[in-house]
Amino acid sequence: MPFDTAVTTAKALDMNDPLADFRKRFVIDDPDLIYLDGNSLGRLPQATAELMQNTIENGWGRRLIRSWNEGWIDLPSTLGANIARLVGAQPDEIIVSGATSINLFKLAAAALRARPGRERIVSDVFNFPSDLYILQGLIDFLGKQHTLHLIPSRDGIHIDDNAIDAAIDEDTALVTLSHVVFKSAFMYDMAWVTQRAHDAGALVVWDLSHAAGAVPVDLNASNADMAVGCTYKYLNGGPGSPAFLYVRKDLQEKLMQPMWGWLGSDKPFDFALDYTPAADISRFKVGTPPVLSMTAIQAGVELLLQAGMERLREKSVSQTEYLIDLFDQWLAPLEFTLGSPRTATQRGSHISLRHPQAYRITRALIESPAPAVRVIPDFRAPDNIRFGITPLYTSYMDIFRAMERLREITAKKIYEKYSTEKPKVT
Amino acid sequence: MPFDTAVTTAKALDMNDPLADFRKRFVIDDPDLIYLDGNSLGRLPQATAELMQNTIENGWGRRLIRSWNEGWIDLPSTLGANIARLVGAQPDEIIVSGATSINLFKLAAAALRARPGRERIVSDVFNFPSDLYILQGLIDFLGKQHTLHLIPSRDGIHIDDNAIDAAIDEDTALVTLSHVVFKSAFMYDMAWVTQRAHDAGALVVWDLSHAAGAVPVDLNASNADMAVGCTYKYLNGGPGSPAFLYVRKDLQEKLMQPMWGWLGSDKPFDFALDYTPAADISRFKVGTPPVLSMTAIQAGVELLLQAGMERLREKSVSQTEYLIDLFDQWLAPLEFTLGSPRTATQRGSHISLRHPQAYRITRALIESPAPAVRVIPDFRAPDNIRFGITPLYTSYMDIFRAMERLREITAKKIYEKYSTEKPKVT
Repeated sequence: MPFDTAVTTAKALDMNDPLADFRKRFVIDDPDLIYLDGNSLGRLPQATAELMQNTIENGWGRRLIRSWNEGWIDLPSTLGANIARLVGAQPDEIIVSGATSINLFKLAAAALRARPGRERIVSDVFNFPSDLYILQGLIDFLGKQHTLHLIPSRDGIHIDDNAIDAAIDEDTALVTLSHVVFKSAFMYDMAWVTQRAHDAGALVVWDLSHAAGAVPVDLNASNADMAVGCTYKYLNGGPGSPAFLYVRKDLQEKLMQPMWGWLGSDKPFDFALDYTPAADISRFKVGTPPVLSMTAIQAGVELLLQAGMERLREKSVSQTEYLIDLFDQWLAPLEFTLGSPRTATQRGSHISLRHPQAYRITRALIESPAPAVRVIPDFRAPDNIRFGITPLYTSYMDIFRAMERLREITAKKIYEKYSTEKPKVT
Repeated sequence: MPFDTAVTTAKALDMNDPLADFRKRFVIDDPDLIYLDGNSLGRLPQATAELMQNTIENGWGRRLIRSWNEGWIDLPSTLGANIARLVGAQPDEIIVSGATSINLFKLAAAALRARPGRERIVSDVFNFPSDLYILQGLIDFLGKQHTLHLIPSRDGIHIDDNAIDAAIDEDTALVTLSHVVFKSAFMYDMAWVTQRAHDAGALVVWDLSHAAGAVPVDLNASNADMAVGCTYKYLNGGPGSPAFLYVRKDLQEKLMQPMWGWLGSDKPFDFALDYTPAADISRFKVGTPPVLSMTAIQAGVELLLQAGMERLREKSVSQTEYLIDLFDQWLAPLEFTLGSPRTATQRGSHISLRHPQAYRITRALIESPAPAVRVIPDFRAPDNIRFGITPLYTSYMDIFRAMERLREITAKKIYEKYSTEKPKVT
């Protein structure tokens, strides 16, 4: 696409974007910083800054311990009910608690207990290492009676239906996958995979970390058993904000997780010496809710609900298509390959572009001094640059400017000035 | 003690208090609210409000994902190193992570694994239910091969040495106790109990929730194996702020906890599909750190370090003695009994007073309309009113006014106007 056509297209699309005004609801103070990493840490909603100040100064500073009775104790449920509206669940099927890894540990352990005698756990080679590590630790802890089978990928981008079919058998206790995988953004057909697992008698735990707020998710319609997910990516809940977990209503009383939390007991303030689990989703609670980090979750979820997941998805698909168009014409000739599915129905809301110099190109995108525009994507080993599309605040011009800069850095080999040495987090 | 003597004493003690100025470092805006619940939720340090605003607006809002490389990723360790100075540990022996219950689960599981064949877990009837529930869940999860033995109390206040001796045997894998117990404030001799456990070949996990920042703790000198503790009480870290865990240096590489966290692996950013644990305390990490709630921990710990635990303890003992003096003369005649040890060396930094009408008296203390002074202690079933002494910001006049008001409410039966119906949290 010629430069002129590309920029004209971007401007026209922004002009006609029904969600364009949501960008103003976020703190965006540097017009020359293109942020395409909302799939790692979502931007700060304007409303969150105010909410936090009130919670700190009034809730903690003045109301002190009384605030626990004035809303704090209910945060896991009230936030969970809002997230439920985003992912097709009932209000009493989701709570916010702990971290994604901790929640996966609880739910995977509950699943294995509910399927005694079955030895296989199925995941895939695309799953985030944190999920795989939790499963490996659980297997080790339970005396290595289970085996972890990872569904392979034919091409490093997709997982084929027949590979899924081959992996799930009558010995499978648990199938646990990321609905949208973190590197290629491949998206599973949640209903189909869940049905396949159920046919074999297995339970399913979906990891929605790269899906919630990014793509339409319908846990109930998919008959999903359980799910976990983080809130700091597309939900804009703030750095390391607590995670959520979902357990389908009819399973809540049947499943038993191993970390028996005080606030997950039937009557915490009776201070009984013996644990009796709550009958509902509360039994999956463990630990005192970190109120400040939890409070920060509220406003971002509210914005997504206002925008509506259908409209967000429509814009996300249009934006990823636009990005792929620019890739085809500008970047494919420069040794880049597309690391994400071309078919929109198989794709989440980020795009991976692969290049032998991906790491140094990423550094050049992020660190180039003014007057160059700075672009923040993220790098995922060995050669992926991920561009997160967050339709609440990503404009088409953001994508245009980022791809134009990417072309310049690569064509002019600007990346050669940057080190290959890695900081702790990229 | 006559009223005049009591108030003169309080004023003189406040005047000569070398720590008096620390009170100004906290947000205290209502002179007629006496807050004696810092053992449940510590007050808001002035510096925390500023630190939070900077982290939210600059760290999250402007620096975005880059902040992870600018300090966030190290928060578990940097905060842990500060807490280590408060509790007699080395900087590389403590991290901040998760919640107390989650940390206890990890460490208790690691202890049981390190003592195969031993079936007994020893705790006491005073331990907080959350700790007991975690142990019960762990026993259940591991197939009920272990039994939980609770050391009894002779008088509802103390645990006798011979009861401890009788409980710990050669079949004991783990001894886990609260260093200061939540209801009576009884304090164990950490070094003696640890030695007793080691003599029997058992490992020890101390819960420091009511001890850290409240009394001098010396984990290294006590040769303690492991410890957990919360940061929202005497450490003033904010509502539900993340907890800490301690593992003695020489044990770190020997112990294996079951929740294998991505950030607890050897090289997280290699994204390897198989887990290799970090060689150090990092292997006990699980979950992305909730940055906002973690940031709030910094300033409170700093204030404790500036004041010094020896000076804080001296003031705490003097203040609890003063409270007990007033109890003896004013409250014992009104059906109150002392629910805490009289011997200072056996006592933490809060005092429980017991009364048949304790719940309604607590409500009257908290809810009385102006011009009455309002007092916030907390109620613990069935009949305890706990008064937390937090020497950083508790004055002797606070104690005087609280006990005077307690006497008035009880003597005049003002509590009869208050309901016995309980809110969720008290």
